[in-house]
Amino acid sequence: MSTAEPILLTPGPLTTSPRTRQAMMIDWGSWDNRFNQLTASLCEQLLAIINGTATHHCVPLQGSGTFAVEAAIGTLVPRDGKILVLINGAYGKRLAKICEVLGRSFSTFETAEDEPTTAADVDRLLRADHDITHVALIHCETSTGILNPLPEIAQVVAQHGKRLIIDAMSSFGALPVDAQQVPFDALIAASGKCLEGVPGMGFVFARKESLASAAGNSHSLAMDLQDQHAYMAKTGQWRFTPPTHVVAALHEALLQYNEEGGLPARHERYAANCQALMEEMGKLGLRSFLPAAIQAPIIATFHAPKDPRYAFKEFYERVKAKGYILYPGKLTQVETFRVGCIGHVNPAQMREAVAAIAEVLREMEVLDI
Amino acid sequence: MSTAEPILLTPGPLTTSPRTRQAMMIDWGSWDNRFNQLTASLCEQLLAIINGTATHHCVPLQGSGTFAVEAAIGTLVPRDGKILVLINGAYGKRLAKICEVLGRSFSTFETAEDEPTTAADVDRLLRADHDITHVALIHCETSTGILNPLPEIAQVVAQHGKRLIIDAMSSFGALPVDAQQVPFDALIAASGKCLEGVPGMGFVFARKESLASAAGNSHSLAMDLQDQHAYMAKTGQWRFTPPTHVVAALHEALLQYNEEGGLPARHERYAANCQALMEEMGKLGLRSFLPAAIQAPIIATFHAPKDPRYAFKEFYERVKAKGYILYPGKLTQVETFRVGCIGHVNPAQMREAVAAIAEVLREMEVLDI
Ligand SMILES: Cc1ncc(COP(=O)(O)O)c(C=O)c1O
Ligand SMILES: Cc1ncc(COP(=O)(O)O)c(C=O)c1O
Repeated sequence: MSTAEPILLTPGPLTTSPRTRQAMMIDWGSWDNRFNQLTASLCEQLLAIINGTATHHCVPLQGSGTFAVEAAIGTLVPRDGKILVLINGAYGKRLAKICEVLGRSFSTFETAEDEPTTAADVDRLLRADHDITHVALIHCETSTGILNPLPEIAQVVAQHGKRLIIDAMSSFGALPVDAQQVPFDALIAASGKCLEGVPGMGFVFARKESLASAAGNSHSLAMDLQDQHAYMAKTGQWRFTPPTHVVAALHEALLQYNEEGGLPARHERYAANCQALMEEMGKLGLRSFLPAAIQAPIIATFHAPKDPRYAFKEFYERVKAKGYILYPGKLTQVETFRVGCIGHVNPAQMREAVAAIAEVLREMEVLDI
Repeated sequence: MSTAEPILLTPGPLTTSPRTRQAMMIDWGSWDNRFNQLTASLCEQLLAIINGTATHHCVPLQGSGTFAVEAAIGTLVPRDGKILVLINGAYGKRLAKICEVLGRSFSTFETAEDEPTTAADVDRLLRADHDITHVALIHCETSTGILNPLPEIAQVVAQHGKRLIIDAMSSFGALPVDAQQVPFDALIAASGKCLEGVPGMGFVFARKESLASAAGNSHSLAMDLQDQHAYMAKTGQWRFTPPTHVVAALHEALLQYNEEGGLPARHERYAANCQALMEEMGKLGLRSFLPAAIQAPIIATFHAPKDPRYAFKEFYERVKAKGYILYPGKLTQVETFRVGCIGHVNPAQMREAVAAIAEVLREMEVLDI
């Protein structure tokens, strides 16, 4: 079966390989030993990506990525903890919202959407407020594609003796993080992003000691990662019915990830996708919202053409008719649209996508870029 | 693609049709209009099954069934509400545990695992405790397969002016419930049960007024059904990344459900499966744990053979080698095993499964049944 059209140039769900989808053609028994082995192999492979086997557990969780973020906050931050949430986009704001709903005490530090948080900011904020126990950071803020300086921030957080929670949803698997170099209590990601699985489960890499002492923290039964892990460690099974087909697809996607050459190869392909995209869009005069230095090779934000004949909805539909699904912008101040660089796509396809975009702009007679 | 071996005789994940699995071969954009239509069509078809379009909303939720149960309790029971949880098995106990973790005040009423809760019980309990605002009932308690008398209990709850929350996870789609006859505030089910989809999402039928007045109740952002519904009503989209392939599979499964003849046909097939199972197991001398009168045609519990040569693990592996996955018992006092009657299987296959069981018992020289 060939790749289903259209190609998704979105930050998840994204285009998967036929082989990954084919793995969903089997019905697995969730109680069965073969499925337990699949889960165990999955967690092992995931831990290897961050070099975390010695220090962290991988706790898979049913649901979307947000469920895993909420579960990490609810499980790993004690009820009397205080979280400093670093914000430069929608996912940072959502993390703060989670703290609010869960009733965890928190403060926020917000920079502009094209301005990374710096380690110096975090140092200053931690000096100013000793009540803070945890810092929460979005690694690649998908609302623009901006990359925050994780290693530097992690060092500062550790120097202050505080704990770091990383939402690495859109970067995990493509941008390197070594758990032995970058200290963190939790790093969160999901099946349907850079690993090129299908959406339906998240996972949290949780520091072993932090997880062990987290019993009773959680506001939720379903999202209690300590309980989820303890049960899985004891029985090999998920506590509640796993999304068996999603798990099987992710497992198959990971085999392909390793065959491709693991993180370096994935990073390289996405970087090449992003470069091809930038080059071709540049030729059309379409301007990137972010400067190259802070652009992660995950998703790119472009200024919408100024021409009044441009309207995103029509643009989107016409590009889709040519086989490519784009993504709307998520900025409040500036009109933009986004193009994902991740998924089972290569630079040649990125160039074809931009050729389709060029044709559409011509058809729409959009001249004032 | 043919049905993948082995056949799952388990209460979900279960055996799905090749056509349902085939629907997962497409990558859907979660922001795309075509996917929104898929979700809308799904919710419409689900509401039609309970005749609930006029009175209830269907709110889909990422995650397993337990996530949807927790979401229903968290969203629909105000923080100062009190829940009476009716228990005769593991899923009733889990519901009480959810109330405990969420910090909702609750009391429990427990009967033996082979004894349905009665409407008279509920009447007496509601007279005795006027603080109770909500009653929670497991329709078919999957830990044995026992059927609780939902219509009678619903009438009593309504007469007392209280609200009913029904965990219909394993019965929805196979056992009739008419929302215009059986008053309830929430009925909860999931994709991977009697609708024969794959696991990965639940859904809650929530009374419109109850949902409308539920803002701010939820202990969780991800599991806030009021917010989930409000966002979907406004945008047509899921709030957070949906399990797109699971949604597409469930949509395809519902088309087949309706082609088969809807609920009456599904009920009939499962009842025939259950009858075939009971007859053939009876011939082997294997005794059903429940009397026929309170046995739902969903999953059947059998006493384990007394013979010391019987061991579930070996029995399970040998039956599996012949192509059928059974399910362990979930009772603490008696040794049992379970056989599901649901999924894309028919009575002939049930008879073949029991023939395999018979062979295995002969191979194991299990004589003392
Ligand atoms: C950085 C980041 N955090 C969180 C999420 C939320 O994930 P989900 O939509 O799966 O709930 C996303 C989704 O794209 C993301 O990019
Ligand atoms: C009656 C009942 N309630 C709740 C659940 C929990 O569902 P899940 O395992 O999908 O979380 C089940 C699962 O079989 C069930 O049968």
